[in-house]
Amino acid sequence: MGCFVYFILGSCKDINIGPTAIMSIMIQPYVAILGPAGSVLICFLSGCIIFVLGLLHLGFIVEFFSYPVIAGFTTAAALTIASSQLKGLLGVSWKSNAFLESWISLFEHITETRKWDVTLGVITIAFLIFTKEIRRFGTLMYRPEWSKRRNIIGIFIFMFSLARNAIAVIIGTVIAYSFYLQDYEPFILTGNVTGGLPSFTLPPFSTTDANGTEITFVEMTKVYGSVIVFCPLIAVIEHIAIAKAFSKGRTLDATQELLALGLCNIMGSFVQSMPVTGSFTRTAVNNASGVKTTAGGILTGAMVLLALGFLTSTFRYIPKATLSAVIIVAMYYLCEFEAFALLWRTKKMDLIPLSATLLCCLLINLEYGILIGIATNVLFVLYTSARPKLEIEHPSGDVYVVKLKTGLHFSAAEYVREHILQNCVIEKSTVIIDGKYIGNIDATVAKSFSVLREELIIRDQKLLFINFKKCVMDTCVGVNKDLSQCFRDSLEQIVEVPLTMRTDNNVTVYSMQ
Amino acid sequence: MGCFVYFILGSCKDINIGPTAIMSIMIQPYVAILGPAGSVLICFLSGCIIFVLGLLHLGFIVEFFSYPVIAGFTTAAALTIASSQLKGLLGVSWKSNAFLESWISLFEHITETRKWDVTLGVITIAFLIFTKEIRRFGTLMYRPEWSKRRNIIGIFIFMFSLARNAIAVIIGTVIAYSFYLQDYEPFILTGNVTGGLPSFTLPPFSTTDANGTEITFVEMTKVYGSVIVFCPLIAVIEHIAIAKAFSKGRTLDATQELLALGLCNIMGSFVQSMPVTGSFTRTAVNNASGVKTTAGGILTGAMVLLALGFLTSTFRYIPKATLSAVIIVAMYYLCEFEAFALLWRTKKMDLIPLSATLLCCLLINLEYGILIGIATNVLFVLYTSARPKLEIEHPSGDVYVVKLKTGLHFSAAEYVREHILQNCVIEKSTVIIDGKYIGNIDATVAKSFSVLREELIIRDQKLLFINFKKCVMDTCVGVNKDLSQCFRDSLEQIVEVPLTMRTDNNVTVYSMQ
Repeated sequence: MGCFVYFILGSCKDINIGPTAIMSIMIQPYVAILGPAGSVLICFLSGCIIFVLGLLHLGFIVEFFSYPVIAGFTTAAALTIASSQLKGLLGVSWKSNAFLESWISLFEHITETRKWDVTLGVITIAFLIFTKEIRRFGTLMYRPEWSKRRNIIGIFIFMFSLARNAIAVIIGTVIAYSFYLQDYEPFILTGNVTGGLPSFTLPPFSTTDANGTEITFVEMTKVYGSVIVFCPLIAVIEHIAIAKAFSKGRTLDATQELLALGLCNIMGSFVQSMPVTGSFTRTAVNNASGVKTTAGGILTGAMVLLALGFLTSTFRYIPKATLSAVIIVAMYYLCEFEAFALLWRTKKMDLIPLSATLLCCLLINLEYGILIGIATNVLFVLYTSARPKLEIEHPSGDVYVVKLKTGLHFSAAEYVREHILQNCVIEKSTVIIDGKYIGNIDATVAKSFSVLREELIIRDQKLLFINFKKCVMDTCVGVNKDLSQCFRDSLEQIVEVPLTMRTDNNVTVYSMQ
Repeated sequence: MGCFVYFILGSCKDINIGPTAIMSIMIQPYVAILGPAGSVLICFLSGCIIFVLGLLHLGFIVEFFSYPVIAGFTTAAALTIASSQLKGLLGVSWKSNAFLESWISLFEHITETRKWDVTLGVITIAFLIFTKEIRRFGTLMYRPEWSKRRNIIGIFIFMFSLARNAIAVIIGTVIAYSFYLQDYEPFILTGNVTGGLPSFTLPPFSTTDANGTEITFVEMTKVYGSVIVFCPLIAVIEHIAIAKAFSKGRTLDATQELLALGLCNIMGSFVQSMPVTGSFTRTAVNNASGVKTTAGGILTGAMVLLALGFLTSTFRYIPKATLSAVIIVAMYYLCEFEAFALLWRTKKMDLIPLSATLLCCLLINLEYGILIGIATNVLFVLYTSARPKLEIEHPSGDVYVVKLKTGLHFSAAEYVREHILQNCVIEKSTVIIDGKYIGNIDATVAKSFSVLREELIIRDQKLLFINFKKCVMDTCVGVNKDLSQCFRDSLEQIVEVPLTMRTDNNVTVYSMQ
């Protein structure tokens, strides 16, 4: 469904929309509670939220997902997914799919390992890593200027490497099937997959649990909790990240992409889909295959439909160990361990959001992890806003000129006030705030100016403002009418006599109000 | 206990530490579940958190509570407390103390109103408002230069107004007691108050519920939830706000105040106290009484101890309607409705955090309300950080000079990149980013520069940097070594031939790398 909808609405020719590993791991705990209906409803809700984000032009939200946070999240998701596949690889079974629990369960159940499953799994992993790495040889053995015959080995290796996942699954299935024909079943198999096309119905707004009790819509949303927000956000991030990667040189219409992705999910929920988003690997294959328009999605969609119609009876024989091996290898290559090295080299501070995201995603869960990661990162921005650059010049014994180098937010109000109080201490002096670079202030800052003025008066000092913009002056005067006496046009208007002369006599040139 | 500890550690002579209305309403829901132990444990935990905040010099956290958020929170808390006293005023009873529930319950129970309670309550309210307002006449009838006899009426009115709460309670108690002597009880009375001094023991790290089941420490902290964070934060905000109001002209040692407040709470929890903080009204009375050092707290503490020892038998006869009236009037004067007018005049944008805080505090609860208020306010800061000022000069046909007016955070990375891509479109042109005002960048910004360079190369354009600081250059090169080719010392180094000449011929003066 995603392929067909995106064909009409999408703006990036390469993107392939469908279920992704990260989406799967995010909604898995809720499907465990609510059953299949749980994934269809979250698909519908995510679609609605993404669509509304698009309508409101709120795509800029994704700008707050910085590189360290995304790298930490991706790595944590990959490690979680890979860990959840350990049971399939060993042929044992436990319930949890979370990172920590998977490893604890592995320890508890390692004695139950089935030898044939683990053998098949490990061989498949070795095969996949080998075929992935030989791709480099493929490209080495190919030169456009060489003859076709000379190039054929290079092309073959390249294609073989690209198709490695399909090859591994086909080989595994053939092996399992030939054992099956001899009434022998050494591997745990996928089992029956229901074939046929899904019916077109409304998404489920209520469901029943294992005991047959009804779970209402409100109860379902309570089960989802914060994932209602994070599922669409992660979908948008994955999608936008891929769209950007493949629309090099052209600017991306994020709003159009959000509307398209939202509708893909909404329409998908009518055919019982889980949440979908852009898939990096399939998009890359699409691009490598030389797709020219989004109509490539029609072909993908048609092939999925054909597989649903005619191939599901074959899926029954796919060994679970093979699938686990395919997923584990894919996840290994998704981990961004090099982000640690890169940030160590470039900006060590960024290791904090990266580590916070990675650890919290692994130890708590993916949603909280990304939330804590963003919060950590946003703290850097807030800290900067709370500590504006401030220069105090002291041209003569009784004049201080305070120059603010950036705009002022409420968070900076206290800092500026205290900094001035602590540094401008000479009695009977005049403190002049130069507002040249202050674009705008809020009521909290204006209030702190008003308090500062009163405090300086108590200390027998005086506060004046120069170079203030009209809107900033209005805010100040709105908070305290008395502040209107403090504005001057320029430093020259205050300091009438030359600076060198003023310290000699005691004339109070500042009492001008 | 607060008074005695603050005497030793406090730095602000006027502050009076003890239970406050806002603290009470914050912890009330948890006391309803956990019993008295619930308030003692949160007192201990709050004290520890405040103390640690002080040790880590993290007092600057309170700077993120802006004026609109504090005004909204105070008003909402006052309205909530006043609403929770409606039942006492009418002599009826219901369970909830929340704002909405109180008014709904009022509607349901209004027919049960007890006429004598409501009469006493309303008369007390009228008395309190009248005596509060006549204070103005008191000050009008007092002049230091007048004779003592002429001033005596002014002083009397002033003192009478100041003592109005005590007078109302004493009158109410006397009336109730005289009825009691005639075996007649028209009002609901406070009932027995346990007298005597509390014992000095460890705070309770577990408790039992109404059925006698033990509630462990972990379960108690789960009941508290986010209030574990907000109780100390609100205590700190109240305390620091009061300390600032009464330390005019002197800078406040916030760290010292946090350590003092933290220890007041920790020590308080050993004598079964609820969370304590600076009390605005009592501090104001302290100040008006001419207190000179924090030793004034010793007197307050001693009087509280004496009252506990000898007066508790009297408390039994205080009519609940009188207490409710006293609290309702006090809360009415705490409401900051004028904040709306002030912000309308000065900065209409600030009405958003004010309204968000007020409404969410009233309709959800105080903790979520203040959290949402701060989040709304922080969004303004983040939006500014995500939309840095950016000027693009276009001195000639094939040169763009991009001047960034502020520092860059990860949140600005995408905006800057897209803005440049959209505005610098002429083919074969050179885009020059002037980094004069860029103090520091993070890895996300450096990555976006790297992507921008690749995108411009695809479009047959070129990216150069001038005036970049060493640390910014290092971050860029760390992300992508190729960026090292882009740095130039100044605009002159790039534009070698005069600007007017360059458009005439096709010489590529920029191919210097």
